[in-house]
Amino acid sequence: MSLYPPLTQEILRELRTYLDESRVVTNAKELENVSFDQAAKSLYSQIPEVLVYPISTQEVASIVKLANVHRIPITARGAGSGLAGGAVPLHKGIVIAFDKMNRLLEIDKNNLTVTVEPGIITNKINEALESYGLYFAGYPMSLERCMIGGNIATNAGGGKAIKYGVTGRYIVGLEVVTATGEILTLGGKLFKNVTGYDLKQLFIGSEGTLGIITQATIQLTPLPKAASTMLVWFSQMKDAVQLVPEILTTLGITPTAIELIDQTAMKYVCEALNESFYRPLAQATLLIEVDGANQAVTNQQIQQIASLCERHGAIDVLVAADAPTRERMWKTRRSIAETLKQHSPEMSLEDMVLPIHAIPDYMPHVKRLEDMYEVSMPTYGHAGDGNLHTTLLKKASLTDAEWHALEAILLEELYTVVHQLGGKISGEHGIGIKRKSYFTAMADPAELTIMQAIKKTLDPNNILNPGKIFDLN
Amino acid sequence: MSLYPPLTQEILRELRTYLDESRVVTNAKELENVSFDQAAKSLYSQIPEVLVYPISTQEVASIVKLANVHRIPITARGAGSGLAGGAVPLHKGIVIAFDKMNRLLEIDKNNLTVTVEPGIITNKINEALESYGLYFAGYPMSLERCMIGGNIATNAGGGKAIKYGVTGRYIVGLEVVTATGEILTLGGKLFKNVTGYDLKQLFIGSEGTLGIITQATIQLTPLPKAASTMLVWFSQMKDAVQLVPEILTTLGITPTAIELIDQTAMKYVCEALNESFYRPLAQATLLIEVDGANQAVTNQQIQQIASLCERHGAIDVLVAADAPTRERMWKTRRSIAETLKQHSPEMSLEDMVLPIHAIPDYMPHVKRLEDMYEVSMPTYGHAGDGNLHTTLLKKASLTDAEWHALEAILLEELYTVVHQLGGKISGEHGIGIKRKSYFTAMADPAELTIMQAIKKTLDPNNILNPGKIFDLN
Repeated sequence: MSLYPPLTQEILRELRTYLDESRVVTNAKELENVSFDQAAKSLYSQIPEVLVYPISTQEVASIVKLANVHRIPITARGAGSGLAGGAVPLHKGIVIAFDKMNRLLEIDKNNLTVTVEPGIITNKINEALESYGLYFAGYPMSLERCMIGGNIATNAGGGKAIKYGVTGRYIVGLEVVTATGEILTLGGKLFKNVTGYDLKQLFIGSEGTLGIITQATIQLTPLPKAASTMLVWFSQMKDAVQLVPEILTTLGITPTAIELIDQTAMKYVCEALNESFYRPLAQATLLIEVDGANQAVTNQQIQQIASLCERHGAIDVLVAADAPTRERMWKTRRSIAETLKQHSPEMSLEDMVLPIHAIPDYMPHVKRLEDMYEVSMPTYGHAGDGNLHTTLLKKASLTDAEWHALEAILLEELYTVVHQLGGKISGEHGIGIKRKSYFTAMADPAELTIMQAIKKTLDPNNILNPGKIFDLN
Repeated sequence: MSLYPPLTQEILRELRTYLDESRVVTNAKELENVSFDQAAKSLYSQIPEVLVYPISTQEVASIVKLANVHRIPITARGAGSGLAGGAVPLHKGIVIAFDKMNRLLEIDKNNLTVTVEPGIITNKINEALESYGLYFAGYPMSLERCMIGGNIATNAGGGKAIKYGVTGRYIVGLEVVTATGEILTLGGKLFKNVTGYDLKQLFIGSEGTLGIITQATIQLTPLPKAASTMLVWFSQMKDAVQLVPEILTTLGITPTAIELIDQTAMKYVCEALNESFYRPLAQATLLIEVDGANQAVTNQQIQQIASLCERHGAIDVLVAADAPTRERMWKTRRSIAETLKQHSPEMSLEDMVLPIHAIPDYMPHVKRLEDMYEVSMPTYGHAGDGNLHTTLLKKASLTDAEWHALEAILLEELYTVVHQLGGKISGEHGIGIKRKSYFTAMADPAELTIMQAIKKTLDPNNILNPGKIFDLN
C-alpha cells in the first residue's frame, strides 16, 4: 500500500496548465528511462507517474506547490549518473528532469563566478570558461556526463579533493525551491558570508530531500597552467599510504591528486586496456599529480615526490614525460569503474571514507572477506582524502538472489570495519536508497533524530524525494 | 519583564554538584567581565546570573540539560573577541566560559588533523604544529587572542580567504552539545563525507544558537615554506579592484592575500605608526602576498604581479626585500582597527561583503555619506574576497546618544547600498545583537522563516544564546 495518494487526471491537467503539453510526459517508455540511475537497476528502480521538464524556476515552484497540496512525491533528476539510487522515484509521483534547464546564464570574469541552471553538463561549464583562464575546480569523475545540479545535490567529490575540495566549496550562491514551493535565493557572488545560518550548505548534499536546486553561482579558480603526473608502485599498501602525509609535511606540497589502485583493480584495468602499468609485485599503485602556474615548478615538485617515494620503499616510479603518457595514466585510473562493471555487470560500487592512515588497517579486512566468501573486491579511490571504492563483484556461480544476500553480508561486514576505524559509509556518492538501511542502523541516534527533525521542518508533507537517506515514521 | 525565569538558588546548588565550587562564579566583578565583547559596550552588554567554567564535555552537557529543564538562557563564551555582541548574555542566565577547556588533545600527523578543545587560543594551535610543517590555514585577524571555539561559532574569516577560505573549510570533525544536552559527534578525521545531511556545517557559524561546540578536529595544511609580499598604490579605487580578477585569470596565480586600505584608513594608520607607506595621491593601497613551497617561485610570482600592477595604472609598487619590511607591511594592515579605535573609542566596525567588482560602486556611497553627515568612515578589508570593514567614527561634537542615532541612519544607508549591490551585511563577524534588526528587516522572509524554524526545532525552549541573529515570536 502506497503512503501517497495516486496522481490523478486532475493533477495532470493542472500540470499541463503550467508546462507545455510536450513537457508533461506520461508515455511508458520515457517513464521507464527515468526509473533508475547507476545503482543496480535490479534492486533500485521505480516507474514514476509523470515526468516533467520545466524550463524555469517559476515552473518548478508551481509544480512543487501543486504536489505539496496533493501530497504527491517529487524526485529531482539530473543526468541519472548517481550511484546510490538517489534519483529513483521510490514512491512514484513526479520526476522533475532538468534536461531543459541547462543554460549557462552568466560568466562573470570580474567577480570570478559563473551562474548556471542545474541541467548543464558539468564539463560544459569548464569548456565555456577555458578561454577566461578559469574553471570550476570541483572534479567529479563523471564530469563529462553528470549535471551540476546532481553534483550539488550529492556534494560530489572526485579525484582532486585533497587540493581543491569538493563541489560544495565552490557553490557560493544557490537558488532553491522549497517543499512548499517558495523560491529561496541564498548567498550570491560572495566569497564570505556569515549573514545568518548557512542554509546553502544544508541544501548541498541533501540529495533532493530538502529542496530543489534551480540555479547555482560557482566560484571560479585559475586554470592551472601546468601539471606533472607520475605512477609509483609499492609492494606494501602501508608504504603507499604513509607517503601521503609525508608529501604534505616533508615537502610542503599539496598534490592535486593522490589516487590509489590496489593490485586486483590494477590487474583488471591493465588487462582490459592492454596497458603495461601492471606490476605483479605491487600491492598498491599511486597516481600522483601536481599542478600550478609554471611547468618547471611542477616538474621539479614531481621529481621531489619521486625521490621521496624511492626513499619510502617504492619498487618503481614512472614520471610522465609527455602529455600522451600522462593521459594514459589517467585513463587507466578513470577506466577502473567501467572495467569492473564489464567484468561483472552485477556489482556493488562502494564509497567508504576513512582517516587516510586507516587505509592499511582497512585493506586486510577486504582480503579477509575475499578469502572467506571467495569473492573479488578490487579497491581503488582517492588516497589523498581517504575515500575508497571497494567494488563487490558478483561470483559467477551465484544466482542474483544468492548474490544480493551475500552482498548484504559483505556490506554489513565492511561498513562495520569502516565505523570501527573512524570512517563513514559514503565519501562522495551519497546514501540514496542503497545505503539507507545501513546508514540508519549505524548512525548516532541523536544525529539521525536531528536530521529527521530538519527534514520534517522543511518538508512537512514529506514530498521531496521521500524514502531517501532515511525513512520518517 | 524577562522572557525567562530567574536562576534560583536551587539551580545554583545543582550546578555546584556538577562543577567544583570554584568554577561556578557569582561574584559581581567576574560577572561584569563577561557581560560584553568587542562590540560597543555602551550598547551591547548584560550581566549574567552565573558564570561557569566546565572542564569536560560531560559537564557542559549536564549544565545544558539543567538549563533546558528550567528554561535558563545559556551563552557560550570564547575569548570575548567577537565584534557583534554575540557573546553578550542578552537574557542573563548562564555564561559558559571555555577558558578551562583549552587543551590540544591530539596532533595526528599521519591523518593531517589536530583535535582541540574550544578554549584554546587559535594561534597556540599553530605554534604547536610548526615543527610538523603543518598549520590550521583559517586565519582570523585576531588569532593571537581569539579561541578556536569562537572562530567556529562565527565561521571566522580573515585575510587569507581568497586562497585558503575561512574556518569552516577546515573543521572536519565537531563535537556539539545540543540544546537538550545530548552530545553529537559529527564527521571525524575525514576529508570527504556525504553520509547524511551536513549538520556540522549548520552548527558552524550559528553563533552558539543551535549547539555548543565542545571539541573540534581540524584538517591541516602544509606550512608554506616561502612568501613574498608587496604594497601597491592606485590613484583610483577602480584600478585597484580590477586588478584582483586579473591576477587570477591573466597570471593564473591565486594570492594568499589581497588586502585593501582606502586613503583615509591609510592616512590614520601611517600617522599612528609613523610609517612611510602613505601616498597622498592614492585612493587605494593593496597589500598583496603570495606563498608556496619555494622562495624563488614566490619571488617570481610577486614580480609578475608587480608588472601587472604597473600595466594597470599603479602609481607606486614596493616589493618587500626582506622579512622586516614584510612585517612592516602586515603590521600596517593589522594595526588599522586598533588605530581607528584609539582615534574614536565610540565607533562601529562594519563587515559588509560584496561581489569583488562592486567595491568601486560601493565606495562612492561611503564618500557621499561622509560628506552628507560630516563623518569619517575609513574603509579597509579584504579585496580578494569582497569583505570590507567600513568603520564609522564618532564625530567629537556629538553626544553618545546623538551619535548612536546618526550611526543607525548611516548603517541603514550603507546596508541598503550593500543589498542593492548584491552583498550581505556580514562577511566574517556575524550578526549577533548588533546587526539583528538590520538582518531581520532585510532578509528574504522565506529564508528567515526557515532559519527560525530550524532554531525552534533544535532548541525548542530557546535557551541557547537567545536574542541573537533573530528573535523568535
